[in-house]
Amino acid sequence: MKSNEVIYAKNSAVILLDQTKLPFDLEYLTLTNYRETARAIRNMNLRGAGTVGVAAGYAMAQAFSEFSEIEKILQAKAEIESTRPTAQNLFYSTNLVYFRAISAKNRVKAAWKTADSILKSDIRSTKMIGEFGAELIEDGFGILTHCNAGKLAIQGYGSALAPIYIAFAQGKKDIFVFVDETRPRLQGSRLTAWELAQVKIPHAIIVDNAAGYYMQKGKVNIVFVGADRISANGDVANKIGTYEKAVLAKENNIPFYVAAPSSTIDMKCKTGSEIKIEERGSKEVREVFGKLVANETSDVLNPAFDITPAKFITGIITEKGIHKPDELNTEF
Amino acid sequence: MKSNEVIYAKNSAVILLDQTKLPFDLEYLTLTNYRETARAIRNMNLRGAGTVGVAAGYAMAQAFSEFSEIEKILQAKAEIESTRPTAQNLFYSTNLVYFRAISAKNRVKAAWKTADSILKSDIRSTKMIGEFGAELIEDGFGILTHCNAGKLAIQGYGSALAPIYIAFAQGKKDIFVFVDETRPRLQGSRLTAWELAQVKIPHAIIVDNAAGYYMQKGKVNIVFVGADRISANGDVANKIGTYEKAVLAKENNIPFYVAAPSSTIDMKCKTGSEIKIEERGSKEVREVFGKLVANETSDVLNPAFDITPAKFITGIITEKGIHKPDELNTEF
Repeated sequence: MKSNEVIYAKNSAVILLDQTKLPFDLEYLTLTNYRETARAIRNMNLRGAGTVGVAAGYAMAQAFSEFSEIEKILQAKAEIESTRPTAQNLFYSTNLVYFRAISAKNRVKAAWKTADSILKSDIRSTKMIGEFGAELIEDGFGILTHCNAGKLAIQGYGSALAPIYIAFAQGKKDIFVFVDETRPRLQGSRLTAWELAQVKIPHAIIVDNAAGYYMQKGKVNIVFVGADRISANGDVANKIGTYEKAVLAKENNIPFYVAAPSSTIDMKCKTGSEIKIEERGSKEVREVFGKLVANETSDVLNPAFDITPAKFITGIITEKGIHKPDELNTEF
Repeated sequence: MKSNEVIYAKNSAVILLDQTKLPFDLEYLTLTNYRETARAIRNMNLRGAGTVGVAAGYAMAQAFSEFSEIEKILQAKAEIESTRPTAQNLFYSTNLVYFRAISAKNRVKAAWKTADSILKSDIRSTKMIGEFGAELIEDGFGILTHCNAGKLAIQGYGSALAPIYIAFAQGKKDIFVFVDETRPRLQGSRLTAWELAQVKIPHAIIVDNAAGYYMQKGKVNIVFVGADRISANGDVANKIGTYEKAVLAKENNIPFYVAAPSSTIDMKCKTGSEIKIEERGSKEVREVFGKLVANETSDVLNPAFDITPAKFITGIITEKGIHKPDELNTEF
């Protein structure tokens, strides 16, 4: 898979690899207006902080193509921003496209150019993240990752997977990746596993419950995860379960790294407690691919993200380097 | 559901509620010889420490009905013991039936009587466990449980669920149970949720990844889990993921209790590191009810249990009372 095959724009349409069908089918969606693109974000046909940001940028560009009235464009912006409220990159993109385009002579042209630049910037950033992060990986390392923070999640090399891709390409030996399956949506066993299998990086899928087991047994040397939003004090919002893995890593003296482009850092957000956590529907838990797997008469609670406090994070890897969580305030 | 409807013996056959079909179908299996019963244990048509112990006792009784040669009975015993190597109750039952029967005048009669006594003893024990444990539950408590340690797992009131059943019956108010779905086999969302729904105890299913989230938010006041084997120093083997929840409970200052009949304690086993952990097949992770849910070309690792070190355990509740993990040596 080339990185530009996950999402791209063509004649005002957004062409999108449907991640809900992976790894079983390779299907592309063609989204011809902002509302279709917003729906694809909400329904998670695409997901991952970076890809959500790119899609949101293109959705804004579509809104500029569709409307000339500022009011309608702002309505579209609000609609796009309501799709995944925890994702910092989404707001970063909608605002970047909006403010660049609104002050330009040719708004439509400026909007599309800005949206394209978000995609290009992600590709550059993930290469840098990979190069910084790869220095942390030694021959023979067992690596744990949660959810999918790979090429599907952010164009280029991904975020959490970028150090692994680069280290493997550098020829580091006997790397082995433990892939948390990541209930409820199985982004680990469906997407991360698929990405790693494509480039033949040795790995195994484990249930989320088994991550602690392999840490306790000394099989995990380092943990890499992505981020959906990072607050100024270094707290990290990421896929539900990230907090569990971070606490377990600390208990077992395993370094725990968060990898994300600096656009994921929200300096206006002082601590993780200010981050809104998206609650999703019960169907994701109660059903797996449309098959009922739980007691039907029981309630379900389904938070999509959690907050990992800065004290559990060894470092945050951005395109600018590896930062201590408490250094974000001075560096950004 | 009455407690005696999970498993019972009738005319040398074992009648068994098929737990792989729950909560969708209520189907009974009739197992007419020791080999069929052993296969049902291995295939997890029944599961849970207590129920495995009862089934193993009946399987031994069937072997005594089938064979008179000691050698064949010992072969059957080894076969039964190989089905679920982590379960202490299984070995407890096979040995109890074997040694009581072998020295009796009427071996077959003694074997069946002993097997019946295991079931009756579980029912008595779980009532005591429930009464001791219920004293720990206050009005308004949020309670987390992992896997199924209910009536299906051990006859009567279950182990981890016994304190909840009794506290609810005592009229304690606003109790709410967070039910870990418990991948890979979903014993939480299928079985525990089904049990709680039957008696209308308020509860919600959560993915295993979300347990830490609700602990961190202060919604969980106490954790109850069962045990498959407890070593002399108080380490506990239980369903994969138990260790994760125990570490998270400690981090969040939440009391973490293990509930099990004293037959689960293996004084010959000094520490948890001596307990053999069963590794199960990849299909349980790769498929959910026969549907492929993961990247097919990826490897899978699937440990069925983990070891929770004694230092994470607030107390162990048996039919004899609530014990500190480091007091087992003096009390048993």
